[in-house]
Parts: sequence; C-alpha cells; structure tokens
Amino acid sequence: MAQKSVQVGLVQMSMSPDKAENVEKAAARAREAAERGAEIVCLPELFATPYFCQTEDAENFDLAEPVPGPTTEAMADVARSAKVTLVVPVFERRAPGVYHNSVLVLNKDGTAAGIYRKMHIPDDPLFYEKFYFAPGDTGFTSFATEGARVGPLICWDQWYPEAARLTALTGAEILVYPTAIGWHPSEKSEFGAAQLAAWQTIQRAHAIANGVFVVAVNRVGHEGPRDGGLEFWGHSFVCDPFGIVLAEASESEETLVVRCDLGRIEWVRRNWPFLRDRRIDAYAGITSRYLG
Amino acid sequence: MAQKSVQVGLVQMSMSPDKAENVEKAAARAREAAERGAEIVCLPELFATPYFCQTEDAENFDLAEPVPGPTTEAMADVARSAKVTLVVPVFERRAPGVYHNSVLVLNKDGTAAGIYRKMHIPDDPLFYEKFYFAPGDTGFTSFATEGARVGPLICWDQWYPEAARLTALTGAEILVYPTAIGWHPSEKSEFGAAQLAAWQTIQRAHAIANGVFVVAVNRVGHEGPRDGGLEFWGHSFVCDPFGIVLAEASESEETLVVRCDLGRIEWVRRNWPFLRDRRIDAYAGITSRYLG
Repeated sequence: MAQKSVQVGLVQMSMSPDKAENVEKAAARAREAAERGAEIVCLPELFATPYFCQTEDAENFDLAEPVPGPTTEAMADVARSAKVTLVVPVFERRAPGVYHNSVLVLNKDGTAAGIYRKMHIPDDPLFYEKFYFAPGDTGFTSFATEGARVGPLICWDQWYPEAARLTALTGAEILVYPTAIGWHPSEKSEFGAAQLAAWQTIQRAHAIANGVFVVAVNRVGHEGPRDGGLEFWGHSFVCDPFGIVLAEASESEETLVVRCDLGRIEWVRRNWPFLRDRRIDAYAGITSRYLG
Repeated sequence: MAQKSVQVGLVQMSMSPDKAENVEKAAARAREAAERGAEIVCLPELFATPYFCQTEDAENFDLAEPVPGPTTEAMADVARSAKVTLVVPVFERRAPGVYHNSVLVLNKDGTAAGIYRKMHIPDDPLFYEKFYFAPGDTGFTSFATEGARVGPLICWDQWYPEAARLTALTGAEILVYPTAIGWHPSEKSEFGAAQLAAWQTIQRAHAIANGVFVVAVNRVGHEGPRDGGLEFWGHSFVCDPFGIVLAEASESEETLVVRCDLGRIEWVRRNWPFLRDRRIDAYAGITSRYLG
C-alpha cells in the first residue's frame, strides 16, 4: 500500500473590515505554514472579508471578484513563491447578478487545479447566504494536486452526507471544508456546546463513512454588533479516515500543520469495507425531496 | 408543535446456545421494560440465537424460522399481554435457499406493523453474513406504530448514510438499529476504543443529518472460542435529533427505558433546516459504485 503522506496546513484566523489586510494576513500565514512543512494550505471561508452575510445589503456585491481576480492572483503568487498548494475561498463574481461562494484550488506553480462553487446554501438568522450566492453548478468533485487529491466543500455542505459521499466517490483523499460557523452570543451558554459537538460529529462521520481525511478550517473572532453578531468558534481540525481527530485548534488564531498518512485510507477501507457493500440498486430515492 | 413523547426500551442482553432460553429471557425483559413504562421495546440483532455467523456452516440454516413463526408468535404474545410495540429481529426463512436477517415490528395488539430485511450485508472475519443472508429487498422504510413512526435498520446498515437518509425521508421519527457488534479480543487493546467511537459517532451523525432519534441496541457477552471469538461491546444508546446522547448502557446486560420527546424533531429541524437545502438535482451519482 502507498506510504505517501502529505502535510496539511490550516490557517484559522480572524478578519478585519480591510480586505487588503486580510489577504496579507492570510498570505503571511500560508507562507509560514509552508515554512513549517505544509504542502497544502487551507484558508477559512470568505477569508478576504468580514462575514458580510449577517445583513442583506446589495452594496456588498462590490466585495465580489472575478476568478482569476486580484485576491486569487495574490494567492497564486504565494503558491508559486512558497511552492505550496492553496485552497482559496473567494466571493466570486461570475457575471452581473451571478455571484458564488467558491473555492479555488491552486497548484504549487500558481495555476488553477479547479474551482468548486458551494452547492448547499444556508439561510438562517445572521447567515443570509441565499441573498448573496447562487447555488453552485459544479457538482461535487475533487482535484489532483501534487500532494493529494483534494475534494473542496464549503461550510453548510458539512451537514450533508450526500456531499461527502459524492466527493469521496470522485477519488478525493482529503475533504476540505473552509468554514464560517459561530455562535449567536445570546444562545451560546444554552446551546453552544451541543452545536460545536454536532459540527465535529457529523464531519468525523463523513471521514468514517467514506474512508477519507477531513479538514475543517474555521474563522475565529467576533463580528457584528457588540450585543449581537456572531462569535466564530474556531476548533479547526483534521481527522483521519476512521474519524480519529489528529489535531484540533483552539478558539483563537492558530495555524496547524498536520501530517496525513494517505496510505491509511486504503488500510481503513480494507478493514472496514463500507464502499464494497453500498446498495446502489436501492438509493434512487436520495434524489427525492421527501418520501412520506 | 407536537408535545407527544414516547418511552423506548432497549434490551441489551447476552445469548446462550439455547434458543428457548434466549426467547424467554428477551420476553421477560421486554415485559419488565413495559412495566417500567416503555411503549416501544427493541431487542438486539438475531437475539434468539448465538451469533452463528462466526463460521460458515449450512446446518445453521436450521436456526431460521418463517415469519410468522414460533419466535415471532412468542413475541406477539408478549406485545399483546404487555401492550407494547416490539422491534423483533429474526433469522428469517423466506423460502428454501432464501434466508434474511430481518426485523419484524409488532404492534401492541400483536399484529405486524411491517418487516424490514437487512439491506447491507457484511462479510468480514467472524462476521460471515454474506454466506447466510440474501440482501434485503424491502428497501428502506418505516412503520407507523402507536407510539411513533419507527424506521428499522440492522447493524451494518449503521455505516451507510444513505440508509439513514432514505429511512428518515419516509417519515421515520426513530431509527432503530438492532446490532451485533463486538471486538475481536486480540484487537481490542489496540483498536477497540477507536472502533467503539466510530460506531457511536456515525450513528449520532445520522441523527443530526436527518433530525431523528437514533436507538442502537447491541448484544453483550463473549461468544466463540475462549482464545478468539467476539466480545459484543454493548453500549446501546439513544440519541436525540441533534445527536445528544440521552442514555447509554454499560458493557453488561442492562435494560434502558428512555423518554423521547418527539416534538424535538420539528424544533431541531426548524433551527437547523438541513432537509430544506438538499440539492436533490445533484445527487444522482449516489447510485454509482464509483465516480473516479
């Protein structure tokens, strides 16, 4: 079995209102992760800006950029100079009126390995994403990079076993979830622990069900009104193909560099051969909204 | 929102080589659970016999019974006399050469609410189920009972998000997994904790992804050669629709009776509206073996 391993860097960071500042911070931390040995570095969802989806304001579409565009070009420079694969979230302006919550995967030479556009779009208090983002039309996919085959997904996708399964079936070795999840401060004491536990549990389950590594990279910090807003909870983590957590960040800014032994994928899948026994003759109902 | 709640009983037990003894023990414990208030009582997988799948031996087909048959009739008597819904695993002889690992759901009046035949059949060292059981043809379904709508699934099904999803989409409020999972004693010290954690994690994730209660009822005890065999690990549990564990058994015989507030299903689904945002236009690949 393959003994190949890859080191993955997770840049858990907070954002300021200044886009240039956020991009420079992300670039510096990606370089630092590469210096520490990371071959694939992942940034949090919409890392270039504050989480603007807390309100519905058409002026926020000014924050969107084409791909390629200034932010992805700046990160391509980092990829090239640091010789690192980058997973770069971007508020994508695809056409007037067609905006996406996207992830661009950049090769070590700065070229694009591929783009994924968030398929599952939430809409909940302070997460008004359906106002901003057209649902992705990329489907679920993965991209060959020098270190590993990477399956990018984004935040709300985390809650959908279908997304993880389909991405894994395309050959992904690592599912990467740039994320912007946090607590409503008024709910935190009552529900916060259960919310964090559910978020960790379901992602570990995706690793187990599919025999893949899972990497979740969250924002940190409080954004929005002092007496409201969102407190992004951090806890970025990497788990192995049996759901074992290899590393987990705190609730502050932090960069993790974690070695993933890719040979473990086949070892786990041989010993717990779930993919062998899928009843593909009996799953057609998955494309139904409801069966009751 | 509905304030209806239901008490679920989990009979975690060990089995002897004597079928009559196992059925009598299960009957007694089901009655005891009903006396303690349980309205739906669940037994472990293949509760009437030792876990005979540790070897491939055609004589073991003698252990199978038609449905209805002696074991299910005995349990129907319990259902009637104790006025309790029963989830009854059975090694089903459907026709010569057609045997299933099944679950019969019995109403409080002893009539059948429905039968489910295990869809995902494992085959691993000491779990040679593909020798014994034809894959089920019931599909994934759920049955209305007096207390709740019950979605029966069986053991290896636990590892398949598709099974949980499809069962939940039929309207199940509680997924019930009769189980026979255990450690290979020689592996336990190295892998045991991770195996148990994976088993719990993926089932809690099914609850979270689908907003349903999950009930897992496992066997306990060591079966097979003293220096080998299987140590069924118990740890039967109930978790709520956000994956919060409401009760968990030890590794010994134990009967749990756990109240499930069914109104919590809609509360959780309103606050974490995953079912709303499923991309049913993009899931067709789920019926593929592999997409790479």
